[in-house]
Amino acid sequence: MKRIQMLILLARKGALGRKIKITLRELANELGISPQSVLRLFEEMEEEGLIEKDVLGRKTYVEISTEGLAFLESLCDAISEALYNGIIIGEVISGIGEGAYYVRQYSHLIREYLGFDPYPGTLNVRVLFPKTVFDAFCGVRPVILPGFSKEGRTFGDVKAYRVQIGDVEGAIVIPSRTVHPPKIAEIVAPVYLREKLGLKDGSRVTVKVVRG
Amino acid sequence: MKRIQMLILLARKGALGRKIKITLRELANELGISPQSVLRLFEEMEEEGLIEKDVLGRKTYVEISTEGLAFLESLCDAISEALYNGIIIGEVISGIGEGAYYVRQYSHLIREYLGFDPYPGTLNVRVLFPKTVFDAFCGVRPVILPGFSKEGRTFGDVKAYRVQIGDVEGAIVIPSRTVHPPKIAEIVAPVYLREKLGLKDGSRVTVKVVRG
Repeated sequence: MKRIQMLILLARKGALGRKIKITLRELANELGISPQSVLRLFEEMEEEGLIEKDVLGRKTYVEISTEGLAFLESLCDAISEALYNGIIIGEVISGIGEGAYYVRQYSHLIREYLGFDPYPGTLNVRVLFPKTVFDAFCGVRPVILPGFSKEGRTFGDVKAYRVQIGDVEGAIVIPSRTVHPPKIAEIVAPVYLREKLGLKDGSRVTVKVVRG
Repeated sequence: MKRIQMLILLARKGALGRKIKITLRELANELGISPQSVLRLFEEMEEEGLIEKDVLGRKTYVEISTEGLAFLESLCDAISEALYNGIIIGEVISGIGEGAYYVRQYSHLIREYLGFDPYPGTLNVRVLFPKTVFDAFCGVRPVILPGFSKEGRTFGDVKAYRVQIGDVEGAIVIPSRTVHPPKIAEIVAPVYLREKLGLKDGSRVTVKVVRG
């Protein structure tokens, strides 16, 4: 962990593609370890090929090596691959009742495009993981419910992502015009999910994005 | 580091949003440590709130906690933020001479859109970092050199990213139709970069993406 923290710190300070002048004391303070530990860490990291170091008189210059950069990149890739595989974890909360109105308006489209008759209401899930729900949809193409006009009102396009919650298949619906990732996932399903899955406010749920 | 490796391993095995059955021996083999070390690591990680663990008889069930997931996510974010700030590191290589031809064809556009008379040739840099050159362009808008036809030939749109190499300002040029990130960055500049910067095949160079 100390190695990773040191590499991140050096990257932040600009030790990418060029050596920067550092002081052991400053790095020690920022990492919360002793200057002696920084020195020892540097020696180990240099030996492992993670950094390159020059000492000129009393001045020390450090750069992250290409190997060090590749190490950080592959760590980040490994985390992303392991984490973002279509799992959303959240907590059931109460909606403000708007869901039922919109589900009724879009019900013909849900039937046509998603293939089920929706229960008139949405299950609202406050997303705890991933940080943005779009990370879980990475590489998944939504079903677009096309917008329409009705009785002088305009209803916009809605993106629907097929999901599984418990043993029920439903969909997370997001208005297409939404730019910021919603903190609350609204789920439509053919059944009353709260009853069917025995959920109440505060229940922890895992939602699985269905691919293809 | 062992914590991170364990969390990535558990995530890969699906311990996201649900507990999975694990055996100490299996995890020990995969991490290259002893079963006793896995057990100790689990106890520490449970205490730190990174995982949740149930022991039922001789079976152990483990799940990454929401805190554990947030820890991995923020680690990945910290790495991305520190790494991808517009630095490209590469190695000078020889082109196949095509660069000069294309620079001549686009020279009027380079003059008009980038504001300099290009040296008739490109400096070819094999990209060592980041893994894909587009990571370095993250959030940077290219200047588009619009395609044109000339003497019966069609020349497509070209994306130009302003960069600084040494003390020279130039641009990395990429045909717009390119889908896969190029492994070789082609740089146009107002001067003969090899001569001006004393570069030869194999020289290590750092290219800075100019923002705004």
